[in-house]
Amino acid sequence: YLWLSTRILGPRCFQSREENIILNNPRKRNALSLAMLKSLRHDLLHDIESKELRVIIISAEGPVFSAGHDLKELTSEEETEHHVEVFTTCAEVMTLLQKLPVPVIAKVNGLATAAGCQLVASCDLAVASEKSKFATPGVNVGLFCSTPAVAVGRSLPRKVALEMLFTGEPISAHDALLHGLLSKVVPEEKLEEETMKMARKICETSRSVVALGKAVFYKQMAQDLTEAYRMTSQVMVDNLALKDGQEGIEAFIQKRKPVWLHTENGTSQWLQGK
Amino acid sequence: YLWLSTRILGPRCFQSREENIILNNPRKRNALSLAMLKSLRHDLLHDIESKELRVIIISAEGPVFSAGHDLKELTSEEETEHHVEVFTTCAEVMTLLQKLPVPVIAKVNGLATAAGCQLVASCDLAVASEKSKFATPGVNVGLFCSTPAVAVGRSLPRKVALEMLFTGEPISAHDALLHGLLSKVVPEEKLEEETMKMARKICETSRSVVALGKAVFYKQMAQDLTEAYRMTSQVMVDNLALKDGQEGIEAFIQKRKPVWLHTENGTSQWLQGK
Amino acid sequence: YLWLSTRILGPRCFQSREENIILNNPRKRNALSLAMLKSLRHDLLHDIESKELRVIIISAEGPVFSAGHDLKELTSEEETEHHVEVFTTCAEVMTLLQKLPVPVIAKVNGLATAAGCQLVASCDLAVASEKSKFATPGVNVGLFCSTPAVAVGRSLPRKVALEMLFTGEPISAHDALLHGLLSKVVPEEKLEEETMKMARKICETSRSVVALGKAVFYKQMAQDLTEAYRMTSQVMVDNLALKDGQEGIEAFIQKRKPVWLHTENGTSQWLQGK
Repeated sequence: YLWLSTRILGPRCFQSREENIILNNPRKRNALSLAMLKSLRHDLLHDIESKELRVIIISAEGPVFSAGHDLKELTSEEETEHHVEVFTTCAEVMTLLQKLPVPVIAKVNGLATAAGCQLVASCDLAVASEKSKFATPGVNVGLFCSTPAVAVGRSLPRKVALEMLFTGEPISAHDALLHGLLSKVVPEEKLEEETMKMARKICETSRSVVALGKAVFYKQMAQDLTEAYRMTSQVMVDNLALKDGQEGIEAFIQKRKPVWLHTENGTSQWLQGK
Repeated sequence: YLWLSTRILGPRCFQSREENIILNNPRKRNALSLAMLKSLRHDLLHDIESKELRVIIISAEGPVFSAGHDLKELTSEEETEHHVEVFTTCAEVMTLLQKLPVPVIAKVNGLATAAGCQLVASCDLAVASEKSKFATPGVNVGLFCSTPAVAVGRSLPRKVALEMLFTGEPISAHDALLHGLLSKVVPEEKLEEETMKMARKICETSRSVVALGKAVFYKQMAQDLTEAYRMTSQVMVDNLALKDGQEGIEAFIQKRKPVWLHTENGTSQWLQGK
Repeated sequence: YLWLSTRILGPRCFQSREENIILNNPRKRNALSLAMLKSLRHDLLHDIESKELRVIIISAEGPVFSAGHDLKELTSEEETEHHVEVFTTCAEVMTLLQKLPVPVIAKVNGLATAAGCQLVASCDLAVASEKSKFATPGVNVGLFCSTPAVAVGRSLPRKVALEMLFTGEPISAHDALLHGLLSKVVPEEKLEEETMKMARKICETSRSVVALGKAVFYKQMAQDLTEAYRMTSQVMVDNLALKDGQEGIEAFIQKRKPVWLHTENGTSQWLQGK
């Protein structure tokens, strides 16, 4: 069932590397069927503890990045329990992206709709080719994109998000960038190069420092300003006490390249402790 | 007192239709006097239970969309109770817009200031002509636009909102679009056509599904991510159980146009029950 | 130690004036050392009760607006208590900016990085020259910009903020404006003129009304919609009862220029009372 699942490409270099997860069911427009969602969850987690892993890139085979849920799984012939499992698994995968200790980049070359658009919105970063388009057209089939709205409503201005949700009309990659859904838009022939440039930049950093920073970013965004500053001020002090924190400052002062240890003890302790 | 009130244009077609509410006191720059606010509230609600009603469009007569509150109602000669009633009614109308079961589009062709700008920001969607401008100039008359700031601060980036509030200077329709206050900007001669295109797209959808989706969108935006996904995942399952949810999926699989029933039982129950 | 501190330029006119605070240690790229932070805090507060003061402008000597913390203060040779004091003082200064009763404008002509970028994001308004750039490159020295992320994450869309934080790459003034970090971008030769135009506009307003409005703006942004409207509706009534509120409306109706008293009794009472 390779065509039902995602496909992982292996490491390019040993010391620090990106992982490529590819939605690999183009005949079904890379629908996020329950099988695809489970495969994606498995692939996101399978090597996540590896010290060498620094960044995950999610891309897709074919002209459609993902068309969202498989509507054949959502008919009234299916048990309600099945519907529940589909949406629960989907929400779990979408929130998992933010909990992973490495940044996740969506690399989009085509149409991303409904839960496919939600997937792009849920990644930490997103690079898209100019021809890519984004839509939440559930309203056309009587199924309002309520779960995609969680991610889309937090990425785009309300008036833009609601136009997408109420009319189902797609927005261009350019507008998606303008309004905050994407980090970068590039010509199709530069998509690989520009995504890899971003990934390689992340590969040069300390895994433990990035893991700490990513977790803290999402945590403080849900707090009020005073609470956020109290928490992050303490995190800065903790960060300085990490081996890689000390190494980074020393290397800077000695005008040399830092040599990271990527020990996550500090991070893991921090994440559990607070 | 027709000139004090808003004016409603009737249905264009029976089965599904938009309602046009027109601010109709151009001599007073469509000031949101207490009478105007009450008239607007009445017109928003008068036919809201109609199954045929799918979308409301708010526009205005004359070159000013609305100049905000009528300052003559806010002098020290008026009782404080009157001031209180003006602001309470205004806040009620502004929040009502989000509670209505159909989308509300602001169609702007001119200047929208103070509470007039707040009205645009409070609609679900907004289409404006290129010549339109938006300002919160209360500071110039010693009355900081604190209530408009609620809507404007939630639609625009903080630094743009504060420049408007502190300086009173207008921003262009182009900048308003760029920063999220509008859904779309079009040449003046296309304003009617483009607004109707958006309205007609909404008229093709199921009233009950859109009502559910709109209510859920605003509700989940105030929740944290985990809570939002828990609530919306359940809503997706409920949506599938709606008659129009079943019809939409079936029609899609059978490659035919869906025939909506627009029964809101599911929706109303849902909204009351949770 | 003038080179360690900020520098204040005095009033330009008596009745209402802006205050210029200049980061004045270009040899150290205006690093926000503990001394610089304390100096900045002192300068922000030293004349804040003056009725003539209407707006504060923060700018910098030299090609770098500010390079953020002084890393030499953050080595493992320093006591942890010292690290704590640096970040606590920094957070205090950043939140102080929003608490001041007058608007604060960042006037940027060059590179603003890490806590320097945080300073720009934390001001109420920001005008920058076209050549200015903004970055949070802490990740390069093993110290994730977790405290800058508080301000940057609240000013820019999440995907843009995370790209800056994960890669350390700078964004242009144009992109910073597009995404909400700045209020305005102008050619370098117009930076002084355009900033002063904004400042002078604020100087024409009532100090007490602006103080009330600024405090209320930040307060309501942290509230839900219903609570925000309840609070601000009452504030509008209180604002009308201020002497400058009455004067402004009267002047408008009598078609004359208002003469502000800038009495802050109403404001101060309000801020303490609620």
